[in-house]
Amino acid sequence: MDMIKVSANSRTSAVAGAIAGVIREHKRAEVQAIGAGAVNQAVKALVLASSYLRNDGIYVVCMPEFVDVEIEDKVRTAIKLVVEPRVPDPTPPVAPPATP
Amino acid sequence: MDMIKVSANSRTSAVAGAIAGVIREHKRAEVQAIGAGAVNQAVKALVLASSYLRNDGIYVVCMPEFVDVEIEDKVRTAIKLVVEPRVPDPTPPVAPPATP
Repeated sequence: MDMIKVSANSRTSAVAGAIAGVIREHKRAEVQAIGAGAVNQAVKALVLASSYLRNDGIYVVCMPEFVDVEIEDKVRTAIKLVVEPRVPDPTPPVAPPATP
Repeated sequence: MDMIKVSANSRTSAVAGAIAGVIREHKRAEVQAIGAGAVNQAVKALVLASSYLRNDGIYVVCMPEFVDVEIEDKVRTAIKLVVEPRVPDPTPPVAPPATP
């Protein structure tokens, strides 16, 4: 599974489409952003991707982490957003009443 | 429950402490940020808060949303991060083998 790398200039809808596609295929996506502009784009894309996926009945949550990445021989701290379907509530949904 | 409002100048550790405190008390926190710098601070604070809470055995996830807020008679789009404990996995953990 590829890491989705986001920059401050990434198009929100393109990143959102990528996140939704990876979630549908792999049930997990990782989105990496370095710097405030990129993190903002990543979070906006995640809001959009969540709404796409909600239409398919998939409810995602995100867990942000710090990761060190080496870019041109310099170590920079990136934000990695791990996106996964929400673990379903253990309480089963109430069945609808039988139609008379 | 109060909304935790984050600006680009907010101290990461102060926001993280606030998030962790609200989660411990209310099991849910809402963090609001407007603009790339503020969103970046909010996400960094959430990474830090998650690590504080993990030490207490609390694993949080976040769901970002757009919200319209009115500031000085202008409507601006904010990012709201809803932070909640992860719904526990329905599969119970395997019990350790009994000591002989």
